[in-house]
Amino acid sequence: MSALNTDLYQLTMAAGYFANGKAGDTGTFEVLVRRLPKHRNFLLAAGLQQAAEYLTELQFRKDEIDYLRSLAAFKNAPPEFFDFLRKLRFTGDLFAMPEGTPLFSGEPMAIIRAPLIQAQLVETYLLSTFAFQTSIASKAARCVIASEGRSVVEFGSRRAHTPQAGVLAGRAAHIGGCLGTSNTEAGMRFGIPVFGTAAHSWTMAFPNEEEGFRRLQTLLGESTVFLIDTYDTLAGARLAAQLGRPLWGVRLDSGDLVTLSKKVRQILNDAGLSEAKIMATNDLDEYRLAQLIRDGAPIDAFGVGTQLATSADAPALSAVYKMVELKTGGTVHYTAKFSGEKSTLPAAKQVYRYPHCDMVALYDECNSAFQGEPLLQPVILNGELVEPLPPTIRSQAHAKAAVAALPAELRSLEESAPYDITISQRLLELAENVRTEHHLART
Amino acid sequence: MSALNTDLYQLTMAAGYFANGKAGDTGTFEVLVRRLPKHRNFLLAAGLQQAAEYLTELQFRKDEIDYLRSLAAFKNAPPEFFDFLRKLRFTGDLFAMPEGTPLFSGEPMAIIRAPLIQAQLVETYLLSTFAFQTSIASKAARCVIASEGRSVVEFGSRRAHTPQAGVLAGRAAHIGGCLGTSNTEAGMRFGIPVFGTAAHSWTMAFPNEEEGFRRLQTLLGESTVFLIDTYDTLAGARLAAQLGRPLWGVRLDSGDLVTLSKKVRQILNDAGLSEAKIMATNDLDEYRLAQLIRDGAPIDAFGVGTQLATSADAPALSAVYKMVELKTGGTVHYTAKFSGEKSTLPAAKQVYRYPHCDMVALYDECNSAFQGEPLLQPVILNGELVEPLPPTIRSQAHAKAAVAALPAELRSLEESAPYDITISQRLLELAENVRTEHHLART
Repeated sequence: MSALNTDLYQLTMAAGYFANGKAGDTGTFEVLVRRLPKHRNFLLAAGLQQAAEYLTELQFRKDEIDYLRSLAAFKNAPPEFFDFLRKLRFTGDLFAMPEGTPLFSGEPMAIIRAPLIQAQLVETYLLSTFAFQTSIASKAARCVIASEGRSVVEFGSRRAHTPQAGVLAGRAAHIGGCLGTSNTEAGMRFGIPVFGTAAHSWTMAFPNEEEGFRRLQTLLGESTVFLIDTYDTLAGARLAAQLGRPLWGVRLDSGDLVTLSKKVRQILNDAGLSEAKIMATNDLDEYRLAQLIRDGAPIDAFGVGTQLATSADAPALSAVYKMVELKTGGTVHYTAKFSGEKSTLPAAKQVYRYPHCDMVALYDECNSAFQGEPLLQPVILNGELVEPLPPTIRSQAHAKAAVAALPAELRSLEESAPYDITISQRLLELAENVRTEHHLART
Repeated sequence: MSALNTDLYQLTMAAGYFANGKAGDTGTFEVLVRRLPKHRNFLLAAGLQQAAEYLTELQFRKDEIDYLRSLAAFKNAPPEFFDFLRKLRFTGDLFAMPEGTPLFSGEPMAIIRAPLIQAQLVETYLLSTFAFQTSIASKAARCVIASEGRSVVEFGSRRAHTPQAGVLAGRAAHIGGCLGTSNTEAGMRFGIPVFGTAAHSWTMAFPNEEEGFRRLQTLLGESTVFLIDTYDTLAGARLAAQLGRPLWGVRLDSGDLVTLSKKVRQILNDAGLSEAKIMATNDLDEYRLAQLIRDGAPIDAFGVGTQLATSADAPALSAVYKMVELKTGGTVHYTAKFSGEKSTLPAAKQVYRYPHCDMVALYDECNSAFQGEPLLQPVILNGELVEPLPPTIRSQAHAKAAVAALPAELRSLEESAPYDITISQRLLELAENVRTEHHLART
């Protein structure tokens, strides 16, 4: 992790704030998703642990500062700015929805309140952290919904956008409800169950399929999964049936999965292996899972790869980081952007969740008036983690319960009516005041 | 970088190869893209530097080995396997197309020849490394083509799939022809020009736009770019014109870029600032760039973000890693997969490039017979880097020349006829022999 992993303008602005006596100002920013992607009725918040780690570990190395000094953009920056950067640590606050919380467009999933320079610097890293894992957790939730209780495992590391994205895709998919991942680093770092047995190359590395299968069975015993489509799927299934126990089951990775799974099921059953399972892989996504189940494919577990680890049908979220408050010399200014579809609401907010609707209010409005569940929780205060963040398995349980509590139509794979979100009266009034002030100031 | 950043099955297979006396076998694998994504007439190979770093630095830490020991999948693995893993280093060879080389479907962009266990272990990391950067470099090349000589800068870090992907997107975009990136870490690590001045929050952090603009100008001098759409774009342009020099220009980030850029150009010209430039951002991609230019928008530079850093219209490549040779006990077996659309050709290959066509041949076929340019070059031999890899600016120059040498229709944004690729007679014969042997062996 490098403190330079940010857009250059965050650093030029930092120099500018420093040079203009704004290092003492406090900025409040929120992370929100402007619009749900097509085919998403909800998102699942994720990425908080990596966001918190970044904030609590943020610091500039000497060579990074030397690099900045070498850039033309910093030639007018005060020399003290570089000493300031060298000592910079994140000393602000982070409020966020717990990972696995269903999230809708326009709702802040995180709020950062910190000295302006700090709050601005962290935008780029925080956005890419929150947005990516939120995309993947959300896609995973859809696959899990489509699977109707069958197992879904994340297998997409090889297609993720860098090896690091593979690890975090495995993590986010676990939050979204996947049983586990093939990514072994994700398994070790996050305590996520890891899955995987052998590839086609294993079978090809032995003189024949039988030899390959036998050797695998010796190694893996009851967790043996025979990949049966290297040469001929049904011949592979018959070979698996002949070898028999111990085995977990077989995997299909090509061809017509409906027809093949039915025939393979029959072959296994005829050999007395009715408890042996069938796993399917091969460019699956939630739609193919739903179709396979509708077509009666007797598949027990799905390995979902590329489509999940890249959220291929919605590979980018319209996640933004917007200043909502600025405290200068003891005075709080509420800030917003007024430009059509990119407009934002001012002020730090809280999101209250009720059965089947949310209320977005000012953070300091009294909750007793609402009695909903406040979703944004303190995570970092004055630069210190409030408490350790939960393991992904707990976030998964949280997500499962919270998704089950949503209106049923939101759990459809098709686009439903939007979720019911109300803006509080006081927030609406504040927004109107800010808008009026801006117009007055500019006329 | 963790040696566990791989699919679990690579590790279970490693244990199996070790247990079955195959640690001395040599595997040859190739990385290829099965199909060009829609709207791509060519790809640009990228990611080689990170692939080479991974291979030359690969090793297992003790805690990683302890983790593997704790998994059920390894309970039958021989104890010596874990000592073996602890000492494992990559001792094989890597041949690859230089970064920036145009690449077509079915052509190996890299060949790995190494002890079987090593060659298998590295699949996942290599695929995600090559595929992601290749996607981004290719998308960047399209944006650069569409820009018709105007500058294109990569601005997408915040939407990349993790902060690490943001850094490498900046790198790959530079190879693909972007002038630079906003990602400061990419700038420092890879010597890429970095760009960026200020966000809307800068303007909002001052009592009014004029104050914000003046302070920015003091800081940045001739590299000042006024972001003029925080409140009202044309008022912002008039303010920029009034402040005048020093400045580089202005940036538009919302609204109708054609109309606005024309009006802003006029405002700047009327103020005697005809040399001031106009930059545009706001969810651009190659199609929007082409449209803006067709519509006569007087835009000098484009900041391309989300669509580029996620390759949003083609977020995953069908990149695969296939065993093509296996040497066991001194005998080379040629291997291939015969399952319809997933079929592959056996044997280590070379790709020869001619004006307007390629020949894929066996690696050891004599080049003198072909006289084309061999694209796969030795990068690592016996675990050692042959020579330092070139900086991205050299790969960019290579890409520029190589793309210019392609048939003109391939530089269209629309889908052209496929590039002409021939398979050598000897490779075809070998493939047929392997197929026949397989069928004989299985009947």
